[in-house]
Amino acid sequence: MRPLEDLIEVLKRFPGVGEKTATRYAFYVMHAGDADIQQLIRAIKSVKEKLRLCSRCFHLTDVDPCQICTDKRRDPTRLCVVETPMDLLAIEKAGQFRGLYHVLHGVLSPLDGIGPGDIRFSELLDRVRDEGVREVILAFNPTVEGESTSSFIAERIKSMDVSVSRIAYGIPVGGSLEYSDPLTLSRALDNRKPM
Amino acid sequence: MRPLEDLIEVLKRFPGVGEKTATRYAFYVMHAGDADIQQLIRAIKSVKEKLRLCSRCFHLTDVDPCQICTDKRRDPTRLCVVETPMDLLAIEKAGQFRGLYHVLHGVLSPLDGIGPGDIRFSELLDRVRDEGVREVILAFNPTVEGESTSSFIAERIKSMDVSVSRIAYGIPVGGSLEYSDPLTLSRALDNRKPM
Repeated sequence: MRPLEDLIEVLKRFPGVGEKTATRYAFYVMHAGDADIQQLIRAIKSVKEKLRLCSRCFHLTDVDPCQICTDKRRDPTRLCVVETPMDLLAIEKAGQFRGLYHVLHGVLSPLDGIGPGDIRFSELLDRVRDEGVREVILAFNPTVEGESTSSFIAERIKSMDVSVSRIAYGIPVGGSLEYSDPLTLSRALDNRKPM
Repeated sequence: MRPLEDLIEVLKRFPGVGEKTATRYAFYVMHAGDADIQQLIRAIKSVKEKLRLCSRCFHLTDVDPCQICTDKRRDPTRLCVVETPMDLLAIEKAGQFRGLYHVLHGVLSPLDGIGPGDIRFSELLDRVRDEGVREVILAFNPTVEGESTSSFIAERIKSMDVSVSRIAYGIPVGGSLEYSDPLTLSRALDNRKPM
């Protein structure tokens, strides 16, 4: 049984995976067809070998610049700034935003010693200055770090005569007032829109 | 981004894994150290190449007979019959049972066309007859199929003058009467023990 136990141990390193889930996955691997497993191994290797950061927007990519940066149908005058590639993917999935992105790879966090020099901030300023950007949309998580990063960037960019906005924080679609936490409700009230 | 999307697609084939979980796993793979990933790939390959069924108990193993069957400290007169290798592992994890196992690889299910010939049933009878088994413990899930399989096996084995029991179904330890479903409560009442 060593092979199965070894695989379970390795799978437990995946985020949020405990003994039971790892065991289920290991049994899946055991029962899956050889072609599926070859494909899995190939996909893992390919992610490790081929993915790098786009030299323009710092999103993950296997071609440089990335497919989003080189997509002629997208509007290069609008730039959405996010913390991580996962945030970018989440926004892409929504399918509404048709501008370009800039991935900071972090947010400012003085307590953790993370300043503007530790994230892709100067690269953002360069792009705003050099690429004819007219609107910057800040899309960070509604955390203290996310908001102070928003304020910090907004101040710098406004001085460059570029409009800056941040995404709305409020009641999620499908959510209910009754079960919303007080902070979300406060935000929803603060951010009310005239009708 | 193809490599990442490909990996997400492949990971979505794992049981219970949707888009979001697959994305988290793919990012884990991307950020994990090369040594971890080599170990993952080696463990996957090893499970596919080395695991077979023990020719005696039909549990998964890389040596035949398996380590449980050849463990001299275990009591060969007691045999615990389970549906799947995962059920066996769950019982082993509890650490209380020190006899041997027999994995049926299925339960009887007339509606799905699964009869005694489709599971390792004749092998069980052979073992009970030939290996000096004195007690058979049936450990199936509390489902219609599990229970009819229990009854079917119990009838056959009792005629061989071997004692047969099945594991108790009732309120789980840590569970509460208030939140138990009616069926579990009925079972707990039916299976009450004199004090």
